[in-house]
Amino acid sequence: MTDTIMLTPIGVVDGGRADPVDDDWDSETCTIVLDAAQFDDQALMGLDTFSHAEIIFHFNKVPADKITKDARHPRGNTDWPRVGIFAQRGKNRPNLLAVSVCEILKVDGTRLTVRGLDAIAGTPVVDIKPVMQEFQPRGAIKQPDWSHELMKGYWS
Amino acid sequence: MTDTIMLTPIGVVDGGRADPVDDDWDSETCTIVLDAAQFDDQALMGLDTFSHAEIIFHFNKVPADKITKDARHPRGNTDWPRVGIFAQRGKNRPNLLAVSVCEILKVDGTRLTVRGLDAIAGTPVVDIKPVMQEFQPRGAIKQPDWSHELMKGYWS
Repeated sequence: MTDTIMLTPIGVVDGGRADPVDDDWDSETCTIVLDAAQFDDQALMGLDTFSHAEIIFHFNKVPADKITKDARHPRGNTDWPRVGIFAQRGKNRPNLLAVSVCEILKVDGTRLTVRGLDAIAGTPVVDIKPVMQEFQPRGAIKQPDWSHELMKGYWS
Repeated sequence: MTDTIMLTPIGVVDGGRADPVDDDWDSETCTIVLDAAQFDDQALMGLDTFSHAEIIFHFNKVPADKITKDARHPRGNTDWPRVGIFAQRGKNRPNLLAVSVCEILKVDGTRLTVRGLDAIAGTPVVDIKPVMQEFQPRGAIKQPDWSHELMKGYWS
């Protein structure tokens, strides 16, 4: 079960926020620059016919000894219940992968400019997928109150 | 930019479909079994207060020589335009990562049972995240017609 999987970043986040302040991310614009050694302008062809992209990136600034495998209070807030690392979306998680949806502003060759990506400058990107209605949750979303409180102000 | 990232699977898909037939996935139920060498029952604690989970898994059956970096017709259908690999969600992609949303049926210790995960039995799982309304696309989703046609019958 534990065979290692090797990923090669496909690109990097250029511009946007320098520090990981979790607030008001929709005010940020940045560009994902594909690795020119791997890709040409075919890789992003047609992505501009979609409004949103899902970006998979790597929380590469998190030290290994911060990774949590046990339950904890999200953001250390003891007003909220202790929940497992797979019941929250915090960055100190096994494999350090983030999945986030942002708005596509422009595709220019191997450069994808987006609004509202919650990744800081220099972040390695490992995949880009187009957002399709069909891949949204089937059925109504139910979630606990603490998660709504935690997300207040996150995007805007 | 190309520093390798190493992932360790957190678990594996048990049950569900044996072959990758892309149709009617919402009829399938399977269980994600966490790796007992890494996790105890704290890891999934509280996930049952969410209706849906986002699963990141590895298309481990795709041979390296099938990975596409250029534009192609989705599913080889020439009625649809050639688009780049990052403008489609097909499995023959760099880094072979999938992101998919499924319905949570049951959390039992280190076992998560779900409906509608489009992964076959034995698939390595690298992350589980709770689905929150706040992480859905901000603003209306726009996508090309071919993507709607491609998705017909995929879930049900």
